[in-house]
Amino acid sequence: MHQPAGVHLLADLYGIAKEKLTQATVIETLLRQSATAAGAHILNSHFHSFGSGQGITGVVMLAESHISIHTWPEFGFAAADIFMCGQAQPLRALEVIRQALQPTSCQVQNIERGSVTHSDVAAT
Amino acid sequence: MHQPAGVHLLADLYGIAKEKLTQATVIETLLRQSATAAGAHILNSHFHSFGSGQGITGVVMLAESHISIHTWPEFGFAAADIFMCGQAQPLRALEVIRQALQPTSCQVQNIERGSVTHSDVAAT
Repeated sequence: MHQPAGVHLLADLYGIAKEKLTQATVIETLLRQSATAAGAHILNSHFHSFGSGQGITGVVMLAESHISIHTWPEFGFAAADIFMCGQAQPLRALEVIRQALQPTSCQVQNIERGSVTHSDVAAT
Repeated sequence: MHQPAGVHLLADLYGIAKEKLTQATVIETLLRQSATAAGAHILNSHFHSFGSGQGITGVVMLAESHISIHTWPEFGFAAADIFMCGQAQPLRALEVIRQALQPTSCQVQNIERGSVTHSDVAAT
């Protein structure tokens, strides 16, 4: 287990060819490759298909946190999250995913997690 | 499968009693309860313990996307994500988690996902 401070990338990927978003085993392999490219350590992975030609949902659980993806082939859309603590490089994982899925556009939010000390955060 | 537009809550929870963050089965039950409270539909769940007294990492996969959690008992810290598309109510899930873990402080980011049309997003 790593220090809690980490980076969480939320990537909304648009304009993807439908056939790239429907095969759970293909996307599972892709996300595992992306984790390795980032230098992360895979614990396990779990993928679910909503049916032939339909979307998939899946997660790769990491010692550094997780990578998840949810796809909507009917919209050419995928929502990917890459959350990595420690020394792993989440942008490298995102690049592997983008290269494979070839979205026409991509909206990425880069969010720091767990980086504040307790005294920095007002009680809510 | 639901429409891609959804809400993703990123909750950094600080000041949690260590013993609340170490038992994978307890936290798995909690996250499944939180999903049900939100009106989401559970596909499956997977939790991993890093060892006795250490942190856990886990995910509940939903028809509406996912809930994940990563805990660091040594820092009294948990990072939870609640990503739900469709009609589910992610804030209700967060409230169940907060009630159970009793953090002294909580930093929540509420992020819209997949809500723009393709033409709204510049190619990158």
